[in-house]
Amino acid sequence: MGFFVHILGSGASMPTGHRSCSAQVVNVEGFKILIDAGEGVQNQIRRAHVKMQSIGTILISHLHGDHFFGLPGLISSMHLCGRTEPLDIFAPQGLNEVLGAIFRVSNTALAFPLNIHTIGPDTQQPILSNNKCTIRSFPIYHSIETYGFIIEEKRKNALSLKRNVATQYNLSADDMQKIKQGADYLMPDGTVIPNSLLTQQPKQPKRYAYCCDTSYNENLIPILNGVELLCFDCTFDSKNTDLAISKGHGTTVQAATLAKQAGVGQLLLTHFSARFKDITPLLDEAHSIFPNTIAATDLDMIDMQNVSKQ
Amino acid sequence: MGFFVHILGSGASMPTGHRSCSAQVVNVEGFKILIDAGEGVQNQIRRAHVKMQSIGTILISHLHGDHFFGLPGLISSMHLCGRTEPLDIFAPQGLNEVLGAIFRVSNTALAFPLNIHTIGPDTQQPILSNNKCTIRSFPIYHSIETYGFIIEEKRKNALSLKRNVATQYNLSADDMQKIKQGADYLMPDGTVIPNSLLTQQPKQPKRYAYCCDTSYNENLIPILNGVELLCFDCTFDSKNTDLAISKGHGTTVQAATLAKQAGVGQLLLTHFSARFKDITPLLDEAHSIFPNTIAATDLDMIDMQNVSKQ
Repeated sequence: MGFFVHILGSGASMPTGHRSCSAQVVNVEGFKILIDAGEGVQNQIRRAHVKMQSIGTILISHLHGDHFFGLPGLISSMHLCGRTEPLDIFAPQGLNEVLGAIFRVSNTALAFPLNIHTIGPDTQQPILSNNKCTIRSFPIYHSIETYGFIIEEKRKNALSLKRNVATQYNLSADDMQKIKQGADYLMPDGTVIPNSLLTQQPKQPKRYAYCCDTSYNENLIPILNGVELLCFDCTFDSKNTDLAISKGHGTTVQAATLAKQAGVGQLLLTHFSARFKDITPLLDEAHSIFPNTIAATDLDMIDMQNVSKQ
Repeated sequence: MGFFVHILGSGASMPTGHRSCSAQVVNVEGFKILIDAGEGVQNQIRRAHVKMQSIGTILISHLHGDHFFGLPGLISSMHLCGRTEPLDIFAPQGLNEVLGAIFRVSNTALAFPLNIHTIGPDTQQPILSNNKCTIRSFPIYHSIETYGFIIEEKRKNALSLKRNVATQYNLSADDMQKIKQGADYLMPDGTVIPNSLLTQQPKQPKRYAYCCDTSYNENLIPILNGVELLCFDCTFDSKNTDLAISKGHGTTVQAATLAKQAGVGQLLLTHFSARFKDITPLLDEAHSIFPNTIAATDLDMIDMQNVSKQ
């Protein structure tokens, strides 16, 4: 359990020997969300040791091939491996048409419910909310209709025991239950240990924001304000700013500037153009503006517990 | 130059760590044909050191995902890498609908002509014929409309010089040209060397047949009669014959039996189910019926010059 981001693909428009196309699995307390599904995503899911059938929700940012060409193969493999659980996909208008054509020509009748939810520009309501997390979408700035996502842990209202308290006072399960509900602890010798010495307040829920593919746009500042981890489009370095703008992508400097303006905890760069064999210079550019920046690498896993403001 | 088969993917319905989904590049004197295009084919093309843009013709046997889910990514990458040369795809009815939907929702206008030719059951006319080869298609026996292909080298009518003749007689370019046209050679001392001692007849053109996915069917015997290399569906071993029949696939024994009945030169087994980690027992089963059998392995290359009857 916990809150983790598994990077499956961190490359741009074409897969290379080192970077697959865009895909990530976000795991919030065991609830697994696939964000984007570039070609080969089913292979990357296996390499990351994520159980394919444990993914119940897929978010597709936009309908450029490098973000969804792995989806038909993944769905087919889920079907061939006997899936019966529903699969919910959230994507812009049009995915239905593509998947419908594919499964029609291949004469495939899926053995599980495939629920395709169309994302629209309304950002007022979460697109999904359950007991683990809330997911919100918002329009971002690319060459076709594209969405960013914020995944926020659900707030836990219960108190939790401080480390070592159970052994220190030799607490029974019943004692622990009462203490978590706010009770003080009465020791066998009559001493009262106040609840505040035994428990800690629930942690502030963390938020993960995914913005890829997009240009820099200051409209994103209030939306991303204060998120713990921001994953942002870094297709280009600052030398290619004009190219980035014309293609609807971000640069090192733009990603870092936005991270600073939005006061995020940590910046995670991704979607690197295949032209950059070594991304150290790109990280250096971002560090000069926003020091708490890391670069996505295929099959890396980020534990949101370790993400904090510097 | 020559006639080669590059195996890009030899697995069945799902990619595994060892076998990609179905795909091969056949190179006939530099004319490159991609047969099937399972997910990840663009990666496999790069790993096989085939130049992606040198592929001008693609044959799709049928519209199950493991045979064409890599096609949209390959076409997109050809486009992104600046292709202007036409691409000809031969496939059963329906591919147009899928590719049309994909490029419509991604707002992609390809910068090269994409010519999709629908294959039908007419086997009288070749689907393609140029100065390098002739390609014929024929219906095979799967759960949806599926085609096999025979690629046949063009017969070379010209005589060729025997090895070492040019240096032995110190021939000029003009001499060699005349000898290839049938002339005898008059040596400076007046001796006449008859043409038959200087030249060899053109080789018999070779044929490569691809039959995947299909059940065994004796209707295939006359079509495959005497081909030098037959690539055949070997999804299962003989223990799973009933399963193979129900799924429209072949077994070791069926492939080897057909190879023997059709009098082919060599049998190439492919499309192995992921359940077989070690295919040695499958090869053993086939060898007991048709000894000149080999198994496809991803990234192997077969030189048709080395393929002969045993």
